Amino acid sequence: MSDAVKFVVNAAGRPVPTVVNGHEQIPFQGVGGYRPEKSKHAPPIRSCADYPSSGDKRVASLEAALRKCGLKDGMVISTHHHLRNGDRIALQVLQTAARMGVRDLMWFPSASFPCHAPVIELMESGAVHHIEGSMNGPLGEYCSSGKMRGLGVLRSHGGRWQAIQDGEVKIDIAVIAAPTADAFGNANGAHGKSACGSLGFALADSMYADHVIVVTDNLVPFPCVPWQIQGNNVDCVVEVDSIGDPSKIVSGTTQITRSPDRLLIAEYVARFIRDAGILRPGFSFQAGAGGIALAFVAFLRDMMREKKIKARFVRGGSSKYLVELLQEGLVDYILDGQTFDLDAVHSMATDPRHVATSPFTSYNFHGKGNFASLVDVAVLGATEVDHQFNGNVVTHSDGRLLHGIGGWQNCLAAGCTILAVPSFRDRIPVIVDKVTTLTGPGELIDVVVTERGIAINPRRKDLLDAVRGSSLPIRPIEEIQKEVLAICGGQPEKAKVLDRPVAVVKWVDGTVLDTVWQVGELKGLLRPAREASAE
Amino acid sequence: MSDAVKFVVNAAGRPVPTVVNGHEQIPFQGVGGYRPEKSKHAPPIRSCADYPSSGDKRVASLEAALRKCGLKDGMVISTHHHLRNGDRIALQVLQTAARMGVRDLMWFPSASFPCHAPVIELMESGAVHHIEGSMNGPLGEYCSSGKMRGLGVLRSHGGRWQAIQDGEVKIDIAVIAAPTADAFGNANGAHGKSACGSLGFALADSMYADHVIVVTDNLVPFPCVPWQIQGNNVDCVVEVDSIGDPSKIVSGTTQITRSPDRLLIAEYVARFIRDAGILRPGFSFQAGAGGIALAFVAFLRDMMREKKIKARFVRGGSSKYLVELLQEGLVDYILDGQTFDLDAVHSMATDPRHVATSPFTSYNFHGKGNFASLVDVAVLGATEVDHQFNGNVVTHSDGRLLHGIGGWQNCLAAGCTILAVPSFRDRIPVIVDKVTTLTGPGELIDVVVTERGIAINPRRKDLLDAVRGSSLPIRPIEEIQKEVLAICGGQPEKAKVLDRPVAVVKWVDGTVLDTVWQVGELKGLLRPAREASAE
Repeated sequence: MSDAVKFVVNAAGRPVPTVVNGHEQIPFQGVGGYRPEKSKHAPPIRSCADYPSSGDKRVASLEAALRKCGLKDGMVISTHHHLRNGDRIALQVLQTAARMGVRDLMWFPSASFPCHAPVIELMESGAVHHIEGSMNGPLGEYCSSGKMRGLGVLRSHGGRWQAIQDGEVKIDIAVIAAPTADAFGNANGAHGKSACGSLGFALADSMYADHVIVVTDNLVPFPCVPWQIQGNNVDCVVEVDSIGDPSKIVSGTTQITRSPDRLLIAEYVARFIRDAGILRPGFSFQAGAGGIALAFVAFLRDMMREKKIKARFVRGGSSKYLVELLQEGLVDYILDGQTFDLDAVHSMATDPRHVATSPFTSYNFHGKGNFASLVDVAVLGATEVDHQFNGNVVTHSDGRLLHGIGGWQNCLAAGCTILAVPSFRDRIPVIVDKVTTLTGPGELIDVVVTERGIAINPRRKDLLDAVRGSSLPIRPIEEIQKEVLAICGGQPEKAKVLDRPVAVVKWVDGTVLDTVWQVGELKGLLRPAREASAE
Repeated sequence: MSDAVKFVVNAAGRPVPTVVNGHEQIPFQGVGGYRPEKSKHAPPIRSCADYPSSGDKRVASLEAALRKCGLKDGMVISTHHHLRNGDRIALQVLQTAARMGVRDLMWFPSASFPCHAPVIELMESGAVHHIEGSMNGPLGEYCSSGKMRGLGVLRSHGGRWQAIQDGEVKIDIAVIAAPTADAFGNANGAHGKSACGSLGFALADSMYADHVIVVTDNLVPFPCVPWQIQGNNVDCVVEVDSIGDPSKIVSGTTQITRSPDRLLIAEYVARFIRDAGILRPGFSFQAGAGGIALAFVAFLRDMMREKKIKARFVRGGSSKYLVELLQEGLVDYILDGQTFDLDAVHSMATDPRHVATSPFTSYNFHGKGNFASLVDVAVLGATEVDHQFNGNVVTHSDGRLLHGIGGWQNCLAAGCTILAVPSFRDRIPVIVDKVTTLTGPGELIDVVVTERGIAINPRRKDLLDAVRGSSLPIRPIEEIQKEVLAICGGQPEKAKVLDRPVAVVKWVDGTVLDTVWQVGELKGLLRPAREASAE
């Protein structure tokens, strides 16, 4: 493949391929630089005359459903990741398709997890051609090693909606694992033994795919309320014993960090939000499920109590910590993209102030605005951040692709974006000269909070002014880096990557922001990658 | 216009124009006969870069909003009818546009009411070219008289969604009067001084229109929850003192009939539903807001109590009578298209079992099924019904166009469709030899219930068998008609209509079902209409 790939250097100075998996690409043109001129994807018009008037769309098996939906070689099959590492359906779909003899499928998950590692065998056997979607863990390593036939395409949650909506990815068959559904195809994630909260990540799939299959282990009589997925978009319904392992759906990784360093980072974040004047009546914030993010919420909660300040809304990934804020009356609404524990699942199912959102409302950059830019402050993580405040969340400093983007890129639109990161991990500095893979442009990243100090992007004079005189350890990012390099014994070793692309990182507008390169040695290719490609 | 109009006789034997307002038409091809082959309408892709990142889309006035949306001659302007005869916005929009000097607008309301009569002046002045949408009362008379420059196009609620979704009507600017909204454009009808329940009739407009304006008299801080209309589809927000007259929004016409004849009809309907075996655990029904429909619900409720039978869902138009069923536990869910009184508005706003629906979920024929065909029994009205059980709801026997279709055509998909009608009105028989305007094909109408007896469509042998031996007065439809003709002194006078079309009636699939003809004399045209046209 690499021989035929042409590269251009985009507005971020990164070499990116001009064609990805046969589709012409638009290189990144700067934040807000690219303006779409086409129309949205237009799925085929259907007729009720072709669907049972009883509303009963059940078919006997996943295989029967795939056949009914016209499964054939080369199709795009989409799944969602609300069941996280407990998901039993995505793999089953692909394995069933493989047994049916089809080849060269493109798998288009909203994210993949370690439980999906056996898809590697399907790629080896030829049933699956490649994956476009976040590849966490083993699949990311497989992609990194250069063994996948097509390029990985990494999109944010909002970017995935944008790609579907704009017709960049045309889904042939969407398979939606639903914790509750009726025979008409109305479905939700709120109820049932496999409850996961919302099904927002599958919403675009249900609206734009040619064919939609709902798979459920909790079939209820019509109407399934709420219908997060509308049966009017669904072709058939399959009943199975279990769509997932409940203990892994709600993963239990949502514990506040106990690391003293990370607690310090969390405290700095909360104090920064307070001292910069962001903590004011009616403010809003976004917090994910990481240990630091949860801890900063606890610090912020105490400050809100003390100052008697109520937030208007908080955006999650939600957990019991956000639910407690809601129940205590410290926030009016949780606007929720996914639920991370059972408290949050229960809250969303029963409290009308805990509102399920979708990537359309929250993150899609190709709409008439989205919620992300209305958030006063977003607190995020990163694998690397550099002097220009550019962020990386997908690769490690050794070049390996190990993480998806999630909503990270989309959240950068917040009024103030804070990266809360330890200054090093396993003696690898997090602050680097230049990020291995550019995932978020530095102009959108305002503050980097580490246990050794807080660096404010010089572009944000307003924030620098706001915290002047506070007791916070505000320091230049280079100074923090220098201190860390001394501890870690110098710069990390340069990633040993080859000049063969294995994946691209899309920006929120569908343009190509950066390239992920093959890791390790590949015969016939001699030069290290980025130097060669940047020529 | 009439000189150039070509007609074809469609599958229902009705002459229909081949071109309407410049657009080629498909004549009705029989129930389920037409299969769409195109793709859905694809609105332009937008970018957040073109909308304020603060989410504040407010503009100073309706005029400023229309200008921002690029108002120009010949555009299609849509509004919704949830505020019914209390609506203050639709007229204001068109009058503002007229003051701005534009001409030849097409007004595309989901329905119009007597309060919109001043649009006649705008049609006379040239600002509005014609109306496509239900024309109740004065606007219907104006259209009937042949004075409108274009043809009226009458669509059911589901047909309107279908027309927008399929691109048959491309909306340039949708104006959504919202009882509650935030500055981002999220909006609902559930709360505020002008609360009307849902905003479902404006949903397609918000999704498919090029530009969307939300007008509200109750601006709340973001987020407006629930967001029945998503701000991500909205261009700008206008704040006004009042969007409508609350006393007319919730119209108070939802009183149970006191007429002994109509109470008898209602009782027959309920007894029919019971004796035909439709009243069984988990059944479902649809009831509108007419006096007979409300009364039959009261009779049915008593039977449900007596037999301890619970319905799974009821479809409304909802009123306090349905809300009482919900509160009493006689029904699990109300699936609601529009709310007709304050009890229903309150119930929808507070009870998660009282669910707002849209024409997409309930009625759109060009989806993968819809709710209407899942309803066990629908009870509807009509202006006329004929021997073949064909129904008319738009014109009177004198040919005048006075009513919209509403959801009537869509509800015919129910398992059992009952027309509950008095056998005559003002000495005009309701059962006729041939309906003046075909609005619903007889093969979809199963039962006609009058105070003089119940006629079952001979196609429904199952229903005839089911009620055999019951005490209900089951009679052939011709026999009931004969009795009524004797009372009324013979057949009604034939409608004096000319061979000039003034409107067409669309079927749920977008094909043309029938033509509405000009009433009264028009110079230069000599022959009465239907005989001439049917040649």
